[in-house]
Amino acid sequence: MTWDVLSIIGTIAFAVSGAIVAMEEEYDILGVYILGIVTAFGGGAIRNLLIGVPISALWEQSVLFQIALFAMTTVFLFPQRLLKHWRKWGNLTDAIGLGAFAIQGALYASEMGHPVSAVVVAAVLTGSGGGIVRDLLAGRKPLVLREEIYAAWAILAGLAIGFGVVTSSVGYFTLFAFVVLFRVLSYTYKWKLPNKPVRFSDRSL
Amino acid sequence: MTWDVLSIIGTIAFAVSGAIVAMEEEYDILGVYILGIVTAFGGGAIRNLLIGVPISALWEQSVLFQIALFAMTTVFLFPQRLLKHWRKWGNLTDAIGLGAFAIQGALYASEMGHPVSAVVVAAVLTGSGGGIVRDLLAGRKPLVLREEIYAAWAILAGLAIGFGVVTSSVGYFTLFAFVVLFRVLSYTYKWKLPNKPVRFSDRSL
Amino acid sequence: MTWDVLSIIGTIAFAVSGAIVAMEEEYDILGVYILGIVTAFGGGAIRNLLIGVPISALWEQSVLFQIALFAMTTVFLFPQRLLKHWRKWGNLTDAIGLGAFAIQGALYASEMGHPVSAVVVAAVLTGSGGGIVRDLLAGRKPLVLREEIYAAWAILAGLAIGFGVVTSSVGYFTLFAFVVLFRVLSYTYKWKLPNKPVRFSDRSL
Repeated sequence: MTWDVLSIIGTIAFAVSGAIVAMEEEYDILGVYILGIVTAFGGGAIRNLLIGVPISALWEQSVLFQIALFAMTTVFLFPQRLLKHWRKWGNLTDAIGLGAFAIQGALYASEMGHPVSAVVVAAVLTGSGGGIVRDLLAGRKPLVLREEIYAAWAILAGLAIGFGVVTSSVGYFTLFAFVVLFRVLSYTYKWKLPNKPVRFSDRSL
Repeated sequence: MTWDVLSIIGTIAFAVSGAIVAMEEEYDILGVYILGIVTAFGGGAIRNLLIGVPISALWEQSVLFQIALFAMTTVFLFPQRLLKHWRKWGNLTDAIGLGAFAIQGALYASEMGHPVSAVVVAAVLTGSGGGIVRDLLAGRKPLVLREEIYAAWAILAGLAIGFGVVTSSVGYFTLFAFVVLFRVLSYTYKWKLPNKPVRFSDRSL
Repeated sequence: MTWDVLSIIGTIAFAVSGAIVAMEEEYDILGVYILGIVTAFGGGAIRNLLIGVPISALWEQSVLFQIALFAMTTVFLFPQRLLKHWRKWGNLTDAIGLGAFAIQGALYASEMGHPVSAVVVAAVLTGSGGGIVRDLLAGRKPLVLREEIYAAWAILAGLAIGFGVVTSSVGYFTLFAFVVLFRVLSYTYKWKLPNKPVRFSDRSL
């Protein structure tokens, strides 16, 4: 039950995030729906592909699909000045989506008996894959790959589940709270992972 | 028989469209072939993936594959001043491809017993997925997502088939004519769906 | 045995190539790992998808996965002035990766009884698909599609295997040496395939 609630919140958060990127890029209402759907369901689709679950299992989620459509329509109809406040709580719902989807993805892969590396990849892709596809379709570099810490928390969740550190319902929800909290902290305090830019005279690699 | 003819025209139209985008981007002849193939077959590949048909079913279409190769070679060898006239009828063949592929895609998904949402997605992806991958590989924002009305006609075709409004051969061809006509009208009269651009001070979403 | 060595060299070369592109794009260390993994394993994943092998077969390659992680970590920790010399031998290892992966991919598809067209596509995608996804995630136009000759050698390898011209171990290794040699020659002497840029007054295709 609680788990379903988390899935719903995550789906709404990701659908809204895709819809807003589409509006920023001046896509029309259909582009808004497509980008929102891709963001909300793309990560799960890629994960299913990589861990061997039929992608068509997506079609059993028709309630989530309708909820996403409703959320995107609401955002599109929202007065623009209210949308500007979206970011205040958008950060939090997005973090909830990341946490819920990363843990779901890791559990999927883990229950199928995949090795830890697959569990981690499933956590990362379910949590952030939709956002990567969203950014590609919007003609942007995937921000997940270079901005403040995002996928790292999904990786930690994947490791905790893959190595069997967390095995109970209580553990999963503690892990979920941990991911949400640290994602919010990363965003708020602009935590960064190390990077090391390289410049070559030509770029013909 | 007539259906095969439509598939062939659609494949040619999409292969040529991909080849021309590649030439606009100054890709070499191999890039021209790759982009043409991706545009002609990419939508069907993504649809197969999402509705649970093995993608390898693509390899049974070797006649279509050879036709696409022939069409792209012809375009590449065409005198450039004739190519400029391509747009005159390119608009029509592209619309034919959209109609034929959207209806094919919807029928595929429908015959497999998927729900309406899957039928609509199959129609949209088969009709426009190839063009989206084409634009991504050419480093462009997918025009389907924001220019004049394109995917909307595929959605209507998907709804008509998904809800069982159209069930006979005659009905499918009427629907096909409808999609082609309205796609041509959308293009000719620059019909637009509503959009609602949003600007935030930062783009760190 | 020798074949395993080639796979390892190819994996290292591609992982390092992805890591360096990520560093050029100022991605953080996690972006470096993700781009390296995608480059090393993405081509094989796309190939599995298209020829009907479960993508989850990727997870059986955990040794290659660990080798790739080690290679990327080494590159990230390397002093920047040494990295500049990477290109000297990077060209060669990348060619080795192309040759090894193209031939592997073609053999996979051939052993499954697919037609020649599928064998060629498998050779191209295994050899260059990872680099295409790498470039998309880095916000670049895929260089494979337009720079000096690259995928063409994978196509020739695919044709040689698909048409049964090469059928023995000795033959495969000769083919491998041929691909590596001609890829190095293409790069060194800036061989180009013909291209034919087209300009239209508008770009609304």
